[in-house]
Amino acid sequence: MELNVYLAGQIHDNWREELRQLADEEQLPLYFFGPMENHSRSDNIGEEILGKQYDAVLKDEAASSFNNLRTEILMQKADVVIALFGEIYKQWNTAMDAGAAAAMGKPLILIRPADLHHPTKELVNKANVVVETKEQAIQALSYVFETD
Amino acid sequence: MELNVYLAGQIHDNWREELRQLADEEQLPLYFFGPMENHSRSDNIGEEILGKQYDAVLKDEAASSFNNLRTEILMQKADVVIALFGEIYKQWNTAMDAGAAAAMGKPLILIRPADLHHPTKELVNKANVVVETKEQAIQALSYVFETD
Amino acid sequence: MELNVYLAGQIHDNWREELRQLADEEQLPLYFFGPMENHSRSDNIGEEILGKQYDAVLKDEAASSFNNLRTEILMQKADVVIALFGEIYKQWNTAMDAGAAAAMGKPLILIRPADLHHPTKELVNKANVVVETKEQAIQALSYVFETD
Amino acid sequence: MELNVYLAGQIHDNWREELRQLADEEQLPLYFFGPMENHSRSDNIGEEILGKQYDAVLKDEAASSFNNLRTEILMQKADVVIALFGEIYKQWNTAMDAGAAAAMGKPLILIRPADLHHPTKELVNKANVVVETKEQAIQALSYVFETD
Amino acid sequence: MELNVYLAGQIHDNWREELRQLADEEQLPLYFFGPMENHSRSDNIGEEILGKQYDAVLKDEAASSFNNLRTEILMQKADVVIALFGEIYKQWNTAMDAGAAAAMGKPLILIRPADLHHPTKELVNKANVVVETKEQAIQALSYVFETD
Amino acid sequence: MELNVYLAGQIHDNWREELRQLADEEQLPLYFFGPMENHSRSDNIGEEILGKQYDAVLKDEAASSFNNLRTEILMQKADVVIALFGEIYKQWNTAMDAGAAAAMGKPLILIRPADLHHPTKELVNKANVVVETKEQAIQALSYVFETD
Amino acid sequence: MELNVYLAGQIHDNWREELRQLADEEQLPLYFFGPMENHSRSDNIGEEILGKQYDAVLKDEAASSFNNLRTEILMQKADVVIALFGEIYKQWNTAMDAGAAAAMGKPLILIRPADLHHPTKELVNKANVVVETKEQAIQALSYVFETD
Amino acid sequence: MELNVYLAGQIHDNWREELRQLADEEQLPLYFFGPMENHSRSDNIGEEILGKQYDAVLKDEAASSFNNLRTEILMQKADVVIALFGEIYKQWNTAMDAGAAAAMGKPLILIRPADLHHPTKELVNKANVVVETKEQAIQALSYVFETD
Repeated sequence: MELNVYLAGQIHDNWREELRQLADEEQLPLYFFGPMENHSRSDNIGEEILGKQYDAVLKDEAASSFNNLRTEILMQKADVVIALFGEIYKQWNTAMDAGAAAAMGKPLILIRPADLHHPTKELVNKANVVVETKEQAIQALSYVFETD
Repeated sequence: MELNVYLAGQIHDNWREELRQLADEEQLPLYFFGPMENHSRSDNIGEEILGKQYDAVLKDEAASSFNNLRTEILMQKADVVIALFGEIYKQWNTAMDAGAAAAMGKPLILIRPADLHHPTKELVNKANVVVETKEQAIQALSYVFETD
Repeated sequence: MELNVYLAGQIHDNWREELRQLADEEQLPLYFFGPMENHSRSDNIGEEILGKQYDAVLKDEAASSFNNLRTEILMQKADVVIALFGEIYKQWNTAMDAGAAAAMGKPLILIRPADLHHPTKELVNKANVVVETKEQAIQALSYVFETD
Repeated sequence: MELNVYLAGQIHDNWREELRQLADEEQLPLYFFGPMENHSRSDNIGEEILGKQYDAVLKDEAASSFNNLRTEILMQKADVVIALFGEIYKQWNTAMDAGAAAAMGKPLILIRPADLHHPTKELVNKANVVVETKEQAIQALSYVFETD
Repeated sequence: MELNVYLAGQIHDNWREELRQLADEEQLPLYFFGPMENHSRSDNIGEEILGKQYDAVLKDEAASSFNNLRTEILMQKADVVIALFGEIYKQWNTAMDAGAAAAMGKPLILIRPADLHHPTKELVNKANVVVETKEQAIQALSYVFETD
Repeated sequence: MELNVYLAGQIHDNWREELRQLADEEQLPLYFFGPMENHSRSDNIGEEILGKQYDAVLKDEAASSFNNLRTEILMQKADVVIALFGEIYKQWNTAMDAGAAAAMGKPLILIRPADLHHPTKELVNKANVVVETKEQAIQALSYVFETD
Repeated sequence: MELNVYLAGQIHDNWREELRQLADEEQLPLYFFGPMENHSRSDNIGEEILGKQYDAVLKDEAASSFNNLRTEILMQKADVVIALFGEIYKQWNTAMDAGAAAAMGKPLILIRPADLHHPTKELVNKANVVVETKEQAIQALSYVFETD
Repeated sequence: MELNVYLAGQIHDNWREELRQLADEEQLPLYFFGPMENHSRSDNIGEEILGKQYDAVLKDEAASSFNNLRTEILMQKADVVIALFGEIYKQWNTAMDAGAAAAMGKPLILIRPADLHHPTKELVNKANVVVETKEQAIQALSYVFETD
């Protein structure tokens, strides 16, 4: 059995790569999907494909249509979703993806630092499991495959 | 025909009351639902019902379970969802509710100031319609009932 | 028992009003919904609510977001959908609505002149019943209530 | 990861073959499905299997039953749907398929020339992304697999 | 609380009227729906609305499209379905309706004489409850409302 | 707005009546449904309707078919489910109903004494909210309607 | 692309084997599933696994539980369902399976002799395509894979 | 064709291993999934991943979140669910899983000793097939693959 895992969250550091390495070390049969991790490409993909837009709002609308297409295709392929929240970014799209995952019946693992407990409290309650570190998220997925 | 409207968003000012008044002025057959708007009660409802918890994280977890129960019951009753985003608050639960609404096939109206276009871009793309003011949101709902 | 009926199709003549009158004459407990029938308002609703757009494409995109919001809310309320096709207009949105209705499991009545049989053939096959006149569509709905 | 792509649209030129070649050049793991592209066979398949029908309407009804069977089987297998609209043909079945795809939660890419913006405006609003050329549609799908 | 009950089965005797009377005697808040009970009208409804068809097969196809429209609308309104099987008629449409009801998650009550046990055995296994008489079917529904 | 509440749990004492009284005192617009509360009638309903069965296993199978019909009809009508667990009874059907409610997307309130925490731990985790007393369950439902 | 095909219908002759051979001759990538074709085993499977039952009704109930388990598992795996009706047997379970397939959104091919048109008319109308012979059913499936 | 089988039930003896061996002897293409069978690990997994909790209730809540994540992921992968009930344990989570499986439309095989017929009667009625031994459960699954 293999599991597809969608990784929702910010694209400002390499947390997805760290998760991949942790999973590789454990030789877990996990396939990770996620959004475009090159930030400027993610912001520019609308104009890259459709050409120059009139203003920044329309540039964002164009970009988000391709980003959401990607997310929607990959989320439907996912057996489980990991959403990561951190101190710095607004990450409304991460919260949107987490809400969508829960509503679609996709099991949801939430990673967030403990001191974010107040603004994430409804997300925490919606998730299947909540952890603070990437290592714990991998432990949670490893546990699905373990037999003793 | 009447419509149930769930109002997702922050509970720090009286924007829901303003929407209700605008709808009343237009005599629209709209029933508005939403979260508990008394902020401290919303934060304390867990301990109010279950008693003192060990720490602030658990207090939040207790409160969010009752808040999410309320949201889930009312969102299932809703024919359309309005989600409001503003400058000040994190509002991750609002984004979560918007994502859930879209995934549940509930028509979604987004209200956000234009200069929030970048952090809300995936939400904007997911919503059925996006407006900047409460008046416009009511115009959108009024339009559903108009015949010329 | 009452039935909600969504009327998909062009808004260039008063066919919906004719249907309403036929239903009234039969005293059928039918509630008819449909798109905005004032054509220029339907085209301008985006700029009416959101203000002037950059060009005609964006004006159309703005308008269609409000028109689709209306359609989506009302289609979800509908127990049965009537889609009308005629000689003159392209009515791709009518075909889109008919396809959506079938995919949502909404019973679908198609009205089309017999000589349109070739371009409508996949729609005809998808519909529950196919008729050529408004009178026949009302007969079909009347039959749902008749006991002998 | 591989993606199944259903190609809805007219069968009067070789646009599907062009898409396949573009995908091959990029070595994208895409499997394309679509309707019978031999036009006269698509029109005659009903009589080919069931024998001579009484008239042209019934010939069309017979043919469309096999065409819709094919579409329904393949659309259910699809991870994403591309619908193409052009200047010449009515293509109501394409609009029907696009409406069905959206209602089934299948991500939808729309290809249409910009000057068709008015009659396609509700379709445009329903699609996840809208492009004008086949190259752009392949770029959109390529973007789903790219990592930087 | 009221319940809508769809009555699937043959239309050759007045078993539905008997059920209605039994429910009235018990003053149960049940609303009964069902197919057209006038047999020749049910067979002729296609030609009544669409006009003369080429042959008996097409006449049947026309009639069944209106009969199935009626069934589909009413079955979607139903909270529970009663399907009756008897000795005389083939009633494949009754079995089809029962299979559809089970697949739609509609609770299903089956009425059949005990000596039909062999040909109805898969239907019996699919139904929620199986009884032999109309009185027993009403007892089953009455039990839903009773408190001691 | 009114809410239908299904009360899953043992039928050996009058806990449902206590809940009803608490709701009445608060004048909450709640409609409570539940299983047959007359225990011997619940055990005998199969033989009451179908007549004497061969043995106790078949008597139970007959009874449970009518009990499950009742539960299934009423659970589908419910906006929210309350499941109560206590010290004494096996209550496997209660746990089954709670699991079904969660899988159906029905919001779930669990009432259980704290010292049952170990055997109910997976149920606790599945429920939307968990309380220890009937008063708390009513507080949770009251909170859905409160505005400050 | 491969397709799983569930073959619903009587088990009194080798029509399934004929279909398999026709598909093999065409080298179609079809996997056929169906009920137990050994008739006496199908009737006895309940007592074979559970032991002697009290009477013929209970023997049938036991057998049908294993037959329906098989059908339900395999129908969920199927991409398309073929249901065959013939002159001799009542085949209510076939009609039940056909109704379930349609309600589950499984594309449905119906095979029936033309002179059965009257008792199968609602089934005919529910099916995606209707043919008279096994060869035609294979042609319909072959058409799904053909490109010109 | 291969089938994924989720094994719900107690983890106090090696009944799952016995089932696996029986399936191996028959060379059935079955993949068995289930909960963590190491009992103390199942109880401690919450603290193992999240660290020491305040009390036994919270320790259980932490553990059950990881256990339910595992169950939810694996149940969604399952084609059929086997639930085993025995004399000794409360097994409320087993009953919850069985209720969830039925509500999710997963075919359900129940294993229980005959003398547990009374407390399991609603579960028995909800299951597709009910047997008393592991050998019978394997016979039921073997029957799905047999052709004569």
